[in-house]
Parts: sequence; C-alpha cells; structure tokens
Amino acid sequence: MNKHRLHTPGPTPIPPEVAAAMAQPLDYHRTDLFRAIVREVEENARYVIGTTADVAILASTGTGALECAVVNLFSQGDKVVAVQSGKFGERWVEIARAYGLEVVVIDLEWGQSVDPVVVKRTLNEHPDAKAVLSTLCETSTGALHDIRALGRIVRAKDRLLVTDAVSALGADELRMDEWLVDAVVSCSQKGLMTPPGIGLCALGERALEASKSSTLPKYYFDFEKYRANLEKETTPFTPAISLWYGLHAALKMMRDEGIDNVFARHARMGEASRSAAKALGLLLFPQHPANTLTSIRLPEGVDGRALLKRIRGEYGFVFAGGQDHLAGKIVRIAHLGWMDDFDMIASIAALERGLNDIGFHAPLGAGVAAAQSSLASPS
Amino acid sequence: MNKHRLHTPGPTPIPPEVAAAMAQPLDYHRTDLFRAIVREVEENARYVIGTTADVAILASTGTGALECAVVNLFSQGDKVVAVQSGKFGERWVEIARAYGLEVVVIDLEWGQSVDPVVVKRTLNEHPDAKAVLSTLCETSTGALHDIRALGRIVRAKDRLLVTDAVSALGADELRMDEWLVDAVVSCSQKGLMTPPGIGLCALGERALEASKSSTLPKYYFDFEKYRANLEKETTPFTPAISLWYGLHAALKMMRDEGIDNVFARHARMGEASRSAAKALGLLLFPQHPANTLTSIRLPEGVDGRALLKRIRGEYGFVFAGGQDHLAGKIVRIAHLGWMDDFDMIASIAALERGLNDIGFHAPLGAGVAAAQSSLASPS
Repeated sequence: MNKHRLHTPGPTPIPPEVAAAMAQPLDYHRTDLFRAIVREVEENARYVIGTTADVAILASTGTGALECAVVNLFSQGDKVVAVQSGKFGERWVEIARAYGLEVVVIDLEWGQSVDPVVVKRTLNEHPDAKAVLSTLCETSTGALHDIRALGRIVRAKDRLLVTDAVSALGADELRMDEWLVDAVVSCSQKGLMTPPGIGLCALGERALEASKSSTLPKYYFDFEKYRANLEKETTPFTPAISLWYGLHAALKMMRDEGIDNVFARHARMGEASRSAAKALGLLLFPQHPANTLTSIRLPEGVDGRALLKRIRGEYGFVFAGGQDHLAGKIVRIAHLGWMDDFDMIASIAALERGLNDIGFHAPLGAGVAAAQSSLASPS
Repeated sequence: MNKHRLHTPGPTPIPPEVAAAMAQPLDYHRTDLFRAIVREVEENARYVIGTTADVAILASTGTGALECAVVNLFSQGDKVVAVQSGKFGERWVEIARAYGLEVVVIDLEWGQSVDPVVVKRTLNEHPDAKAVLSTLCETSTGALHDIRALGRIVRAKDRLLVTDAVSALGADELRMDEWLVDAVVSCSQKGLMTPPGIGLCALGERALEASKSSTLPKYYFDFEKYRANLEKETTPFTPAISLWYGLHAALKMMRDEGIDNVFARHARMGEASRSAAKALGLLLFPQHPANTLTSIRLPEGVDGRALLKRIRGEYGFVFAGGQDHLAGKIVRIAHLGWMDDFDMIASIAALERGLNDIGFHAPLGAGVAAAQSSLASPS
C-alpha cells in the first residue's frame, strides 16, 4: 500500500464534500438552480478575497485570470511596474509585454521579497506608470511579498495595485479592500480546494474605472461581459459546471471555517514546517517565507530530483521541485488548502525518511518533533 | 421519482466511464503518468477531428477556443468572411471585430444554411479576404452548413477555412484534413461527453503557416506555446486535470466505437427525430437540419417556455428553447454525445406528453412510432 498524498502548490487535495459535489450529474446551466449557485459562489468568493468587488469566474487557469486583469485595465503603450522575483513575477512581465505594455521591471533574485521602499522609489521615478503588478506568494520560490505595505504606497500615489494571489488565496492573509488592493487574481486548484480549470479575477472600483478607458482587444476575458451577466446571476459563456459545483462546496467550507481560521491554520502549518526544516539542519530558500508552501534549499550534494522521486515512489508524498534554474536545488512542500496539522507532521516524516534514504543524514524524528511542538503551541 | 435526462446541446450526459475517471484523486500534472494522458488525448482528439494537425487543448469554453483561432491566424485590419445565420455565426463576427478585423458578413436568416455559391462569389468580390469563418452545426438553430463544399471552394481560392465545430464534433460528420478545413474549434461538453471547461483548437499546416505572420497580441491562447509543449507531452499552463481525465476516457470510448459509427448513430437519431416531428404535425426550424440536435418550430399559440417547463417539471427531460428572438418559438432537442436510439424514443415520448399537457393535441404515440420505425430501418 502506498497512499497518495499531494503536497504540490497546485493541484491540491480535494475534500470529499467537493468531490461529492462534482460527482453530481450535470444539469443545464440556464436554470434557477444554477443561478443560485452563481449567486453563492460569487458571494463567497468575495468573502474569501475580502472585497465587495465583482469577481469574474472564468473557465481558465490562473494564467488566463492574470491575462484577464491585464487586458481589462490597460491600453497598448501603457507603462506598468512589475515585481519579478520568480516564475510568476516573470509571467506578469511576459503577459504585459505580449500586450504591448511598457514594463518597468523590479528585478530581484529568486527567493527575495520586494522592499516596499523600492516600489515607492520606482513609482517616483516613473510618474507615468499606471500600476504595480506583483504576486502575493511567489509560488516558484515560496516567498511572500508585503502586499499590505504596497497597497498603502500605491494608493497614496493614485496608481493601481494588481495582485497575483494564485497560490496564496485562502492560505496567506489577504484582505483586498482593507489592504487597498485594486485587482486580485486567483484560481481554483490551490487554497480553494477544487480541481484546476476555474480562474478568478476581482476588479475593485478604481480598477473598474480604469477598465473603461482600456483599449486592448478582448472578448473571452472581457470583464464587462462577466459583470453584466453577474447582475442576472449567470455567466457570459458556458460555465465549467462540474468545477463550479466543486468550488461552490469548497467556498462554503471556507466560509464555515471562517477566513481568519483559514489564515491561522496555514500560518500554523507554515511555522511548523519552517521549525522542522531548521531542526533537520536545512535552510529555507526564501527571504520571507509564505504560509502557502515551504521552500527548502537542499544541501550541496543532495539531488532534489532523486529526493522527490524517492519520496513519491516509496512513501506516496508528492512534493514539488524547483522550476527553471532551481530544478533539483530546492524542494517545495505545499501545506495548502485541505490540509491540517497532522498532514503537516506526516509530510515532514516523509521528508526525513527520504533525505536519509538518499544518503543525507537528517536526524530522524527531529523534524517531526519540532513540527509537533510548534503546532501544539504556535507563536 | 423524476429521472433527470439532459437533452440540451451542451452540457450533455456524462457516461459512467467518464464520471469514474473524473472521480479519481487528482495527481500532479508534471509526471510520466500525465504525459501519457496528454499523448493519448492528443492522438484521439486528432482521430475524432480527422486530422494529423496539432490540437491545442485549452482550459476554456468553446468561445475561448474560437478566440484562440482568431488571435493566432490574423492581424489587425485583416479581412475575413463570416457566415452568420445564428448566435454562433454572430460570435465569430463579434470576436473578429473585437480584435480589429474587417469582417464581410454573409448575413442569413436564422435557420438558413449558407449556399456555397454565395461564399464563392463573396471571395471573388473580396480577393483580399484571408479566410472564411463558419459553423458546422449552428447550435442556436440546428442548421448544418456544408463545410465539405466550402472546403473545396476556399482551398481553390487559397484562403483559410476556419470551422466552429463546437456542438457538431463527434456528432455530425467532419473530416478536417479530407475536407480541406484549415482550422477546427470545439469543446468538451457536447459530442465529447465531458463536462464543460476544455476547449480544442486544431490548426492545420496552412493555418500554422498563417499563424507565423499573425501580429495580434496573445499569451494565454498563443497556439505556439501549446504546440511547443505538446512536443514534450505537456501543457504550457496547469491543465484542467479532472476534465482531462474525463476527456481521456470519453475519447477512448469514441475511438472504440469508431468515428464512422459515431456519425451513423447521430445520423440515425437525427433522422428519427425529424420523422417524429413530422408525424406529430410539427415543422422543423432549419432549412438543412444537423444530426447534432433537432430544432422544431412550435405552432402558433404554443408557448415554448411553458412547454419546456412542463416537460422538465413533470417528466425530467431538459430540452433547450430558442435563444434571442427565437425565445419561446422553437424547441431544441439534442441527441448528442452519450445518446442512443432508446434515449431518442424516450425524448419524443416526453415531447408528445408535454405538448398535449399544455393543450396542443399532438397524436399520442405517432411520434414514437415514427421514430421507432425510422431507427429500425434508417435510410
């Protein structure tokens, strides 16, 4: 027997309530029953994002939702500032450039978090920049950017703050309206505990105002189409019905738990896995680690690919490795979505075993003990 | 007890094999196991479409896949000819215009099919038009366009033929390569018997060549990203994993049945429902009906909304009504995807009962008898 345990930063495990909802026979989507689902999904998506803004629920991945934000807010030649410190910061830059925007890149080493002062200075240097694009948790490195601080800075300068919360939504704290964030983008297969295939794009009041002068060509990702249909509790195009059933159940679970409890649970798991890494003599990769996933820098001589293969093959745990130039050099353990203290302990146990199996002598039990005491008395 | 029977032209019923595949626990998508799924889905999608071309499998609806074709083939200011005889012909026009194309519209009454001679004449009048955009089955009316004839005409003039086979794929005959079609677009929730959320876009050799000079901005729908990743048996963005599991199973079922048998089954069901309508004294709405769905023009005084409500409420059958100006005036009965002779008979029985219930005296039993003899000895 080899139980399968998914600790990747997307997809994440699906709760039985969500699986059961998705297993319902499909119904036609132009009915009162589906309108009720649209209403409740929208309401609970706003709750989780911390906003009163309209949220477009797209049939797309997170990248589609990022593109939705870009094509609705800007016009060709517009200047934007983008924070790039990993693969998904790079994605903002690539999408913006694909649409003919001029991108001022705050180019950080992978694993770093942006210093809010640098954002402020960059906006001073580029008074014509319309917006700042940043990730909340940079999934490729596990680094957290201080979106709350950026919100104050960007709002004070009357620009727009557009945040990729793809992996962080429903894990690391985010309060869109309170933190003065103008647009938030996410998707279904991370903290929202649903399979991939749904993207979310929330545009606040100022973003909506900016969208009125956007001239970038758009159709499928035209926010106005989603907004106008929301008023009728429907969608402009056929919704990904089975995934909506799942998302509907997942958002209800999150509302029942309470978003503060969701954040606290992830904070507790994040802290515990950082303690465990330390107890095993391992270094964390990011400067400011998120609670969405823990990225561990592997010691010299430890082959990350071999480690992941061993842990998956022998123990059934699926961790993620490094992307691009970090391939083989880091291990990323997500504690994201439908995860609790005991999943966390088990994943550290698997890490300890795997490291020893491939010849790195991590003190067996030290990681799980550290995680256990951290979980029992979080700071 | 009120069994639920879905006869809408998307979503369509999900076979148990597909439901079971989708109920599997999610796995990470960057694995050898998922690469095998990518390879098989791609191979079987080509088989069903009748092509050796690369098929981009998108996390999107059919509309996203239409947009994928447009943004990859054209540049701003390009001229295209679009056949418009219903809601989805209109969609081609809307998407093309949203991207700044000049659209020559062959504007037909809803329900009509395009005369290939008119397409030929239009291309003669517009020697600078790069392509013809048409639907195969116009879902909003149930009309079939003669894509095979258009293929010969458009190829002879060295233009591109781009076909929306959203509802028709795996139902009405389509043989992309043999019929000289350059691009085919479809999605998961029609003939492919999978829930909505996956779009397909196949670009043939000439379309791929044209895509090289396209300057429309694109990122999420950039065909080259999908093509390049296919070589590595993967996807550029997180695939809609659970829907891929379902599509994988559905395409296998279609391959096992054989595409000619799939076409013959739909032809048989189409013919039977047309015979039944006739036997009930009803007129068909489209000039040339497709085998994907049967659109029936309701007699004066029969309220389509009341009819559909009665049939759904009392008998559990979900038919579709008319869209836009046809609301209440037609009933659309899909016999599409996971459907057989006996589903067809049952749906006609429900139609007969519903018509009588709301006061239209259709001869009870005449429709089912006509369908039965047509199914037993199809022409």
